[in-house]
Amino acid sequence: MKNNKLVKIGILGLGVVGSELVSLIRKNALRIQLETGVKIEISKVYVRTMHKTRDIELTGLKLTTDSAEIINDPTISIVCECIGGNGFEQSARIVEACLKQKKHLIMSSKKTLAKYANTLLDAAYQNKVALKYDATVGGGIPIAKVLEHSFKGDELTRIYGVFNATSNFIYSKMYDKQQSFDSALKEAQDKGYAENDPSDDVNGFDSLYKLVILTMFGIKKIINPDLINPESFTHINVKDMEYAHELGYRIKPLSALAVQRGGYSCKVSPFLVPEKHLVAQATDNFNAIIMEGKKCGELGFYGQGAGAGPTATAMFDDLISLFSPCDNIDIYPYSLVDKGKVDDLPSRYYLRYTVKNEAGILSKISGLLASLDINIERIIQKIENTDDIEIVMLTSRMNKTTLENIQTICKSKNLTIPAVYPIVD
Amino acid sequence: MKNNKLVKIGILGLGVVGSELVSLIRKNALRIQLETGVKIEISKVYVRTMHKTRDIELTGLKLTTDSAEIINDPTISIVCECIGGNGFEQSARIVEACLKQKKHLIMSSKKTLAKYANTLLDAAYQNKVALKYDATVGGGIPIAKVLEHSFKGDELTRIYGVFNATSNFIYSKMYDKQQSFDSALKEAQDKGYAENDPSDDVNGFDSLYKLVILTMFGIKKIINPDLINPESFTHINVKDMEYAHELGYRIKPLSALAVQRGGYSCKVSPFLVPEKHLVAQATDNFNAIIMEGKKCGELGFYGQGAGAGPTATAMFDDLISLFSPCDNIDIYPYSLVDKGKVDDLPSRYYLRYTVKNEAGILSKISGLLASLDINIERIIQKIENTDDIEIVMLTSRMNKTTLENIQTICKSKNLTIPAVYPIVD
Repeated sequence: MKNNKLVKIGILGLGVVGSELVSLIRKNALRIQLETGVKIEISKVYVRTMHKTRDIELTGLKLTTDSAEIINDPTISIVCECIGGNGFEQSARIVEACLKQKKHLIMSSKKTLAKYANTLLDAAYQNKVALKYDATVGGGIPIAKVLEHSFKGDELTRIYGVFNATSNFIYSKMYDKQQSFDSALKEAQDKGYAENDPSDDVNGFDSLYKLVILTMFGIKKIINPDLINPESFTHINVKDMEYAHELGYRIKPLSALAVQRGGYSCKVSPFLVPEKHLVAQATDNFNAIIMEGKKCGELGFYGQGAGAGPTATAMFDDLISLFSPCDNIDIYPYSLVDKGKVDDLPSRYYLRYTVKNEAGILSKISGLLASLDINIERIIQKIENTDDIEIVMLTSRMNKTTLENIQTICKSKNLTIPAVYPIVD
Repeated sequence: MKNNKLVKIGILGLGVVGSELVSLIRKNALRIQLETGVKIEISKVYVRTMHKTRDIELTGLKLTTDSAEIINDPTISIVCECIGGNGFEQSARIVEACLKQKKHLIMSSKKTLAKYANTLLDAAYQNKVALKYDATVGGGIPIAKVLEHSFKGDELTRIYGVFNATSNFIYSKMYDKQQSFDSALKEAQDKGYAENDPSDDVNGFDSLYKLVILTMFGIKKIINPDLINPESFTHINVKDMEYAHELGYRIKPLSALAVQRGGYSCKVSPFLVPEKHLVAQATDNFNAIIMEGKKCGELGFYGQGAGAGPTATAMFDDLISLFSPCDNIDIYPYSLVDKGKVDDLPSRYYLRYTVKNEAGILSKISGLLASLDINIERIIQKIENTDDIEIVMLTSRMNKTTLENIQTICKSKNLTIPAVYPIVD
């Protein structure tokens, strides 16, 4: 155990996460050496540009703008990727090259991992090195460990929840303060909860990548995110939030995976969630995640969205765990989920129609649904102005094809459905 | 890694947990051998009596009623304790003897561990063997791993929540259905949520032991449970639940640890919890646990109380982790928290007075509180019958001594306070 081994590590990226990681390593190096007998040395740090003021003491750090200096250095055995989502194609290439040089990899970029999971995990498997990625969903909620360890004797059936603190913050402000989406987004940016370019957050891609990675943790399966179209979180109207409330629900920016009969349903969309549900309780910049197992039932987790600190801490944890090599190399290959197995499971839906206020309109709509064997479970009718009315309904369960049928038929009859959201059961 | 090592294990107890563990080992032995190169063999099983019908196939199991046969068998390197809370003194003795014979120990009994933590962890430390206890708080909520791994770079400030599914179920039924404590307890027993002897559950000891063990996971400190008197969960009146609701709170059976200025406050009691709080949302047989760190803020976890299945699964997980010996032996000793450091931190309180309906009574009570510098934050007054009134109030923060002062003075003035509960902030 106390073999006083020297381990050289390379770091890719010296932004907020990279800098925080360097600090953690510096602060704890001696303690780790005493505890594990491993002396960690930061060998080289890859940066995109040398000409940048950095918040960190650079003395003793060897910076390079040439990633090959890390890839091809045989003395470096562990590489920590702190590049982030921008330039994910490039960072995937560097990470893959490092794995092929038999270096253990610790990743922080969700997007890079989710997009290239199959390639990277396969490279790790083929080269018998570890690819650790706790930090990619490190978030404020440390569920990676739970998913990895606690479902060994159980069978995971669902993972769902609010995975994106930015969007949840926006939805909370819209509902609580009747703010517009844009002004709530602005407030999120001012508070540091949203990036300058929030598109991955508000369009659901960040939530999708997280769901893909949690699936990897939970069932060692890779779902290609490119097979799934997230519904953007941006097309949301405070009006629908209020109607949902009248019906006992909150609208939340959700990601949901269901495992059923050998298939996988992946959905990212604004969802209606019962108001008493844990996920509905998570407001502001909180995340809430539910995992459901056959034996354990529902497990719920909630916590704040994370910043550089928790991400670097998760990476540091991954790093330490590598000094116990027997435990940490995934000896099973991950398997890629076939395209044909990824589908949208049936769901109940919230539909809002905006229609001309004319006799028989309700019977027209309900007749259409009845003809497709869809029940209306709840309905409220609102007068929008003298000409128009709004009809809001919760339907029974239907699959995507039926929903699309309804939308097509309605369109042909000049009935618009401006809001369509699935409902969490 | 694939050294095909034979590992012999001993099992203490063959009740529901022990039987489930044997099944898990049988079912997975071959897979583990393929994955880790370790061949597990159940060498001997200690049972209290041979004469008992068991739900498990006994062929191939060597049962013994003499624990020394396991303790003194040098070929057994790992022992799994599945004895449970009854006879905890005896099981602590057996566990300690095994540790002294340099056997790794995997424990499932919360009570045995909490009561003897200092002795057992010290024996493990002195003999350089692992003492794993994830299963003791395995519950439905796998928080042990989170506490152990996720606070390395953070500082734990609070752990609190509903840790006892039995009591929570009872409180839920009392509030929702106006059932009496006893009838709700009966229903819990009928549903299998409560033991035949529920005294440790309803008197708060089970919650206390769990809190002690979570503290061990979170900060490697041992708080002697004998230093803390839990307030029993049984002295609860539906009336107070309703008054609390009027004030925006739910009454929940809580455990709370706060770490502050080098001291530790441990409290087990019915608490008032704000109605929107995660902990208030956990009803029926659900548990909800909040951990608070300086950096991560509040993390919340909820899930169902556990049975034999999840407990055995957690033990099995602990067992597998032992085959990676470098990672799993606590190299630091735990430290025992001094008696003087365990105290009750100041808290806001809910007080219900039952008093004679006479002029000036309110001013008498409020004058008393004011003289002790305690503010009344909220107050409601109820007429109980023609003679008596009830005054319910939420006070500002006070310490235990002040509270006891109030109680003593009131008693001397014939003012009874039948209900006194702390409030979660």
